[in-house]
Amino acid sequence: VTNKPLSGAIVPRFAGLATFMRLPHVPLQDADSIDIGLIGIPWDGGTTNRAGARHGPRQVREMSSLMRNVHPVTGVKPYEIANCADLGDVDVQPIEPAAALASIEQFFRAVRDQDIVPLSVGGDHLVSLPILRAISKGRRLGLVHIDAHSDTNDESLGRCRYTHGTPFRRAIEEGLIDPTRTIQIGIRGSLYAEDDLEWAHRQGIRIVPIEEFHDRGWAEVGRTVQHVIGDAPAYLTFDIDALDPAFAPGTGTPEVGGMSALEAQRLLRGLRGLRFIGADVVEVSPPFDPAGNTALAAATLVFEILCLLAEKLPQA
Amino acid sequence: VTNKPLSGAIVPRFAGLATFMRLPHVPLQDADSIDIGLIGIPWDGGTTNRAGARHGPRQVREMSSLMRNVHPVTGVKPYEIANCADLGDVDVQPIEPAAALASIEQFFRAVRDQDIVPLSVGGDHLVSLPILRAISKGRRLGLVHIDAHSDTNDESLGRCRYTHGTPFRRAIEEGLIDPTRTIQIGIRGSLYAEDDLEWAHRQGIRIVPIEEFHDRGWAEVGRTVQHVIGDAPAYLTFDIDALDPAFAPGTGTPEVGGMSALEAQRLLRGLRGLRFIGADVVEVSPPFDPAGNTALAAATLVFEILCLLAEKLPQA
Amino acid sequence: VTNKPLSGAIVPRFAGLATFMRLPHVPLQDADSIDIGLIGIPWDGGTTNRAGARHGPRQVREMSSLMRNVHPVTGVKPYEIANCADLGDVDVQPIEPAAALASIEQFFRAVRDQDIVPLSVGGDHLVSLPILRAISKGRRLGLVHIDAHSDTNDESLGRCRYTHGTPFRRAIEEGLIDPTRTIQIGIRGSLYAEDDLEWAHRQGIRIVPIEEFHDRGWAEVGRTVQHVIGDAPAYLTFDIDALDPAFAPGTGTPEVGGMSALEAQRLLRGLRGLRFIGADVVEVSPPFDPAGNTALAAATLVFEILCLLAEKLPQA
Amino acid sequence: VTNKPLSGAIVPRFAGLATFMRLPHVPLQDADSIDIGLIGIPWDGGTTNRAGARHGPRQVREMSSLMRNVHPVTGVKPYEIANCADLGDVDVQPIEPAAALASIEQFFRAVRDQDIVPLSVGGDHLVSLPILRAISKGRRLGLVHIDAHSDTNDESLGRCRYTHGTPFRRAIEEGLIDPTRTIQIGIRGSLYAEDDLEWAHRQGIRIVPIEEFHDRGWAEVGRTVQHVIGDAPAYLTFDIDALDPAFAPGTGTPEVGGMSALEAQRLLRGLRGLRFIGADVVEVSPPFDPAGNTALAAATLVFEILCLLAEKLPQA
Amino acid sequence: VTNKPLSGAIVPRFAGLATFMRLPHVPLQDADSIDIGLIGIPWDGGTTNRAGARHGPRQVREMSSLMRNVHPVTGVKPYEIANCADLGDVDVQPIEPAAALASIEQFFRAVRDQDIVPLSVGGDHLVSLPILRAISKGRRLGLVHIDAHSDTNDESLGRCRYTHGTPFRRAIEEGLIDPTRTIQIGIRGSLYAEDDLEWAHRQGIRIVPIEEFHDRGWAEVGRTVQHVIGDAPAYLTFDIDALDPAFAPGTGTPEVGGMSALEAQRLLRGLRGLRFIGADVVEVSPPFDPAGNTALAAATLVFEILCLLAEKLPQA
Amino acid sequence: VTNKPLSGAIVPRFAGLATFMRLPHVPLQDADSIDIGLIGIPWDGGTTNRAGARHGPRQVREMSSLMRNVHPVTGVKPYEIANCADLGDVDVQPIEPAAALASIEQFFRAVRDQDIVPLSVGGDHLVSLPILRAISKGRRLGLVHIDAHSDTNDESLGRCRYTHGTPFRRAIEEGLIDPTRTIQIGIRGSLYAEDDLEWAHRQGIRIVPIEEFHDRGWAEVGRTVQHVIGDAPAYLTFDIDALDPAFAPGTGTPEVGGMSALEAQRLLRGLRGLRFIGADVVEVSPPFDPAGNTALAAATLVFEILCLLAEKLPQA
Repeated sequence: VTNKPLSGAIVPRFAGLATFMRLPHVPLQDADSIDIGLIGIPWDGGTTNRAGARHGPRQVREMSSLMRNVHPVTGVKPYEIANCADLGDVDVQPIEPAAALASIEQFFRAVRDQDIVPLSVGGDHLVSLPILRAISKGRRLGLVHIDAHSDTNDESLGRCRYTHGTPFRRAIEEGLIDPTRTIQIGIRGSLYAEDDLEWAHRQGIRIVPIEEFHDRGWAEVGRTVQHVIGDAPAYLTFDIDALDPAFAPGTGTPEVGGMSALEAQRLLRGLRGLRFIGADVVEVSPPFDPAGNTALAAATLVFEILCLLAEKLPQA
Repeated sequence: VTNKPLSGAIVPRFAGLATFMRLPHVPLQDADSIDIGLIGIPWDGGTTNRAGARHGPRQVREMSSLMRNVHPVTGVKPYEIANCADLGDVDVQPIEPAAALASIEQFFRAVRDQDIVPLSVGGDHLVSLPILRAISKGRRLGLVHIDAHSDTNDESLGRCRYTHGTPFRRAIEEGLIDPTRTIQIGIRGSLYAEDDLEWAHRQGIRIVPIEEFHDRGWAEVGRTVQHVIGDAPAYLTFDIDALDPAFAPGTGTPEVGGMSALEAQRLLRGLRGLRFIGADVVEVSPPFDPAGNTALAAATLVFEILCLLAEKLPQA
Repeated sequence: VTNKPLSGAIVPRFAGLATFMRLPHVPLQDADSIDIGLIGIPWDGGTTNRAGARHGPRQVREMSSLMRNVHPVTGVKPYEIANCADLGDVDVQPIEPAAALASIEQFFRAVRDQDIVPLSVGGDHLVSLPILRAISKGRRLGLVHIDAHSDTNDESLGRCRYTHGTPFRRAIEEGLIDPTRTIQIGIRGSLYAEDDLEWAHRQGIRIVPIEEFHDRGWAEVGRTVQHVIGDAPAYLTFDIDALDPAFAPGTGTPEVGGMSALEAQRLLRGLRGLRFIGADVVEVSPPFDPAGNTALAAATLVFEILCLLAEKLPQA
Repeated sequence: VTNKPLSGAIVPRFAGLATFMRLPHVPLQDADSIDIGLIGIPWDGGTTNRAGARHGPRQVREMSSLMRNVHPVTGVKPYEIANCADLGDVDVQPIEPAAALASIEQFFRAVRDQDIVPLSVGGDHLVSLPILRAISKGRRLGLVHIDAHSDTNDESLGRCRYTHGTPFRRAIEEGLIDPTRTIQIGIRGSLYAEDDLEWAHRQGIRIVPIEEFHDRGWAEVGRTVQHVIGDAPAYLTFDIDALDPAFAPGTGTPEVGGMSALEAQRLLRGLRGLRFIGADVVEVSPPFDPAGNTALAAATLVFEILCLLAEKLPQA
Repeated sequence: VTNKPLSGAIVPRFAGLATFMRLPHVPLQDADSIDIGLIGIPWDGGTTNRAGARHGPRQVREMSSLMRNVHPVTGVKPYEIANCADLGDVDVQPIEPAAALASIEQFFRAVRDQDIVPLSVGGDHLVSLPILRAISKGRRLGLVHIDAHSDTNDESLGRCRYTHGTPFRRAIEEGLIDPTRTIQIGIRGSLYAEDDLEWAHRQGIRIVPIEEFHDRGWAEVGRTVQHVIGDAPAYLTFDIDALDPAFAPGTGTPEVGGMSALEAQRLLRGLRGLRFIGADVVEVSPPFDPAGNTALAAATLVFEILCLLAEKLPQA
Repeated sequence: VTNKPLSGAIVPRFAGLATFMRLPHVPLQDADSIDIGLIGIPWDGGTTNRAGARHGPRQVREMSSLMRNVHPVTGVKPYEIANCADLGDVDVQPIEPAAALASIEQFFRAVRDQDIVPLSVGGDHLVSLPILRAISKGRRLGLVHIDAHSDTNDESLGRCRYTHGTPFRRAIEEGLIDPTRTIQIGIRGSLYAEDDLEWAHRQGIRIVPIEEFHDRGWAEVGRTVQHVIGDAPAYLTFDIDALDPAFAPGTGTPEVGGMSALEAQRLLRGLRGLRFIGADVVEVSPPFDPAGNTALAAATLVFEILCLLAEKLPQA
């Protein structure tokens, strides 16, 4: 038998302890039978701009009480396919970034060693780097990266190589992801210099600016993603700032002119069939969203991704 | 002569007592000559989720001060066709739901008996049930239902048959609406179980999920509505959560991925000619919207609907 | 050994699932060894005014992460004296008040039967009634009632006998509390009629209006409480609206002119030695407090009360 | 018979159109029998700092739904002594200040001519000037002025003689108030120049800085007020910024270090017996108060003042 | 050499004094070498509705810290083409509108006399009038006007000829703009009377209602703009309420059903090549936007417009 | 001649670039003649709890526009005694704490070398440590420390020695301050362990818990401070969380039961005559304060402290 979320049809959604999707909380040491683990990473030590993503996991848990069990379009029933649980938060402190990155990596190594597919909620975007270090297992993974920003800077603030603006440059340099099987969707915003994206392009990353996304639409872009990523294992990372600030104001570096939430949902549905071995949703910063829409959107996207992950489980 | 709203070109919009559309407040007992009555129903006793819709009528009144007199696209001048008034709020207490439903029904019976077309502002969606009981007069009405949710559950919270998730199941069971002349637009969101909508489908309800709405567009969907509803009397109910939370965060069960406000406006304009004998806009919950956008959107939709109702008055 | 809160000196306060005081969550069926149980009652079905107290337990849990282990003035270390746990929320639905009151009573009977001292977080003030029904065991308990309102109305809204304005009238009528061992502190606010408090006075309730509280001070009033309550078992109920809205805006019926938080803390410290067999903190309504101060104040008062309860445990 | 507020014990407070104190709205032309008229002045054209007091009357009306009928300390029942009504808002436009001041004066002349005692809600503090012009009737009135600021500047912004910083200088120059029967309480805040208050002192105004108010207390200061004002007719003006921003953040020129709400209430109670012929509460600026505390405090102070006015009506 | 913004890649965006685009502040008297001047106009004395645009320049400056240097689509590098600076705010007082308009005109005459292209941030829309008076130099300018409202009323509030609803009627009457080279895009919202826009149409203004904008799209509408405006000098004015309130809630007269931010950006990009001699972005009212999205959108649009202006500088 | 703030009596407070106290911005290299430098430290890398103090300097600058020139009680005119300027923000990045601390120290060494008395606005409380390192010049300074917390922990989060909970332990260990001339006022809040403050007590620090402060009052406690500090040079550090969260919700570790703003002001006035060679106000975290009260309180306290510093300048 598998874990089932507490149903909002039985216990009101505002009741009970807030866990991801109202799933049981299962500490990692007891998680032998878990297929997909929802994990919070309350850390924003890589943030060069507005802080607050450390508070993301809690509010996404809270808002995820509004989710239900079955995907309305694909019909996927993730909790019947996969044994899911809230694995709690990574124990990570906000002061020393190097130690924090090591803690995250260590946690996800344990996740990997138990063959749990991780679906994480950040935290800022730098958390993707230690996750990739932990789960790539020497393979260069494909990467579907939905974001306003390419996050392939070399350095930020003159001298810092590990910030939320650099994770995918580091990941490529470290051989964790394959730039030719990397696609970035939703990219926009003014640039520091005209060659900001040149390095990314030179590596072979496929960049889909927001204008192309709007002009071609989610369905066609979905096909491009399928083409770029192919059949090999891949990772999915969703920076909530891919959404327009009207849909997700609570984020560290809001960038005007993004996707609507529905466009993001349909884009994700276009990724069915890809072999994701893990995913994250990052940069939810509750202090900058008085209405809580950002965390609600994030919770909804986590459910969309959960359905993607569940469908492609080996046993599914 | 008919009532005219206080003009924002003469008295500033922030001045004066807040009534719907800045119309005179006319108590029901003095409303003999009123054609269309705007009515507040400050009640959220059917809410299984986030409370607060009891505060909806006041903030919609406040925001409706921003409305003017003439429809910018259709040119309809509702206040020249119809004698309109703010009939005040239904006197309804928040503690005992059965008594509250009876009070609402009684109020709308009096409205009906004075041949006033009711245009109500909720309150949660359960208020549509006693309204329908009061005004259906033994006919099975057509229903245009714009919403994120089908609201045709049998029970909520294990045992409750009268909640904001069940009104239209009850209305069909009670013979108040004709399911084959019912259309639900904007439906979305994860499901409790794969057969959540099966009962609705079996009754013959036409469901237009948000994806179909987006793909076909408001104009085509409008034609589908015309086709489903036909010429017989119908009721229009608009749950503000049909809008995306970016446009309407202040609601009880926000559901990511909805309509934009403009899409909703244009959808409504596509309903011209239908024989609506009443309408409501429900689920505006001000405590969850610090900017007040939700009530503003609701006030705008009330004006759109008022134009629809005025055009089809017998004397119009 | 006893449960210990997760220390903010080890794991950051914003990390981890939010439980009361960061204590382990122990379901009631596993709570044999628990001395003091922290319990959420997410229910506001007795609220005649602004709704939202149903969301209280979650935000108090969230804010209670800021609490630590040792009382700074009395030196009490509750977690060394008492085995404490978060027992979760009472499973209570928002639609049918009578059923909800029965559910609450049933839960607290089970708590009582396991000899757990309950420390509850509401929820609106009507929740105190079913708690008292469950734990009074035929004794008439003393009552320390800190509140802006006496809550001894006979009826609200013309006809409702069970609302958050009536619990202590019902409790006296039902023989659950002894009015001559009842003291109400902080009472204020305009009255419906000059005899609003007459019934309470006639029963022998000692009312300390806010003006008397300010003039005599927390220390003297504390002595009055000791005198009124004496040595017999008593219950402590703290309505957060006893605090001024500057300190606690998020509540159902805010009343200008209340206590400061520090005055409330010191008043509670003056209650050491009383034989409380249970307590609650109620009427925290997060939607009306954008800064979260109300829940923070409530969490702090819960800690103050926890220290009172722990000191007087039989084994302490 | 006199008008009675709609009782919150019968109709929920969140229901019905928002009028001051839930009193009937009586247009000035129908107000023959009214003793005390509550009047909104939605105008902030004299504001040199943060705008928004134009929105004050609406939110004070909204929050005044929380008031009841009988004073809890003095026992005064204003609605049994005096026939009260909400006279609506002065029709005043925000663009041309001179015209606006003329409109206000004209409205209050009509109020005076009907022997109605005006109790106004601003609007910024400049509104007191046209009120005084209308009701002073050639007498030099005493003035009880509770405020953070003396508002006796000669000019603001280099050249403007009519702003919310100058009304009482103008009123003295115009012979509307008697400076030797004027007392200003709660004055604080850094000064433009050391002689900012010199003019006021030279006129004989008694200034009670906040420090003196705190040190001597409301009771003693109340006696000072009685002494300064004496038996002759006087006007009472309460700038909400007299309260500390913790109690009233929503105001144009917040000044740290003010009164608590309870201190203000008790100060007002110390003014019983003075012959006030009118009063106002001004500078409530809702856009700067997300929790609404400021308007709630203002509504409460309006009730306190209403009791003062009612007690001293000729027929009382 | 030209001024360069402080780079967010070197100094964090939240650091340093907030100037427009993090450019140096250069007082007008030292601005000899400046090509494009960013100017704040903290004035809302023409506002007939919700106040607060006086606070616009400060929050737009704050949010403009998030902008960078190079346009992501056109590749324009404004700071390499043009010497830009923050010229500070116009010294303008909020009390006397006529004096304020004169101050604004005087400031922009000085700007014009130094051959600086002004890019202003309001303030309410009436500020465009004195700007046009200062810079039109006897030519009748073309006008690209993006807005929810036509702002060609004759009078507001019965008698006021100079409000934020009248600037372009006055500008045409004064011969400052050429109505046949004027295009208004995004117009929507209910009307006071059916002939509200008749005067505008009779002058030859091309009005693109929001429905036409949506149906034809930004690219085609851009071509229409090019056709209407032609090669002669023109002015660009962007009222932030052209955006839907979901994207820009913080404005004086929000109008449901507007553009998305991305649509606005792309519309602006379609205006490349036009000979703009100045521009403004107006009606940003921070008190009505708790999340700050409105100012962020405005800052982004200012950057878009800056690129347009820089490209067409004589020396560019 | 000395710098004078832009007067709010001449230019509206909402106008102009926001600098501390509306003083001119003078970069450090041009600051030869400056006596007192106001400095922002936008850094919260030592925060173990809620982030956001990095945004403190900007909002304190914004709110400091409300300050004026002359102290209302002491009559001190700081800008006539001392040449003051806004020296801008320390250039400090948020990623690497050690580098950040070094940057801060370096900046304040330059300040010290120019004989400028620094008055800083944080930033979190760890910033006091590098300031003390820079300005102590080998002397052990006295310390007046107003705060809810002692900040003398040895480590936080298990292993971090440099956090906002440890600065004064490090400062004592490094010989920067003299514990026997250190006084901490306002201390409160539950403890991790009963010996949390033992180290501090053993060093000879005089701790005044909030209860003692309330019981003895600001005047007596001021005398105690004078006694503890004596005549030798001292530093003043004010953590805004010394204020109750009702007065200052926007802070990293809010602690219920604190001072009122007026008590804090009067306490500071009791420190006249002490030889402060620098001061800071820290822990203002704007994202947690939707009304902005916290920054306003901080700006007011900065003015109070500025008066203290100015009076004791060597040349004063």
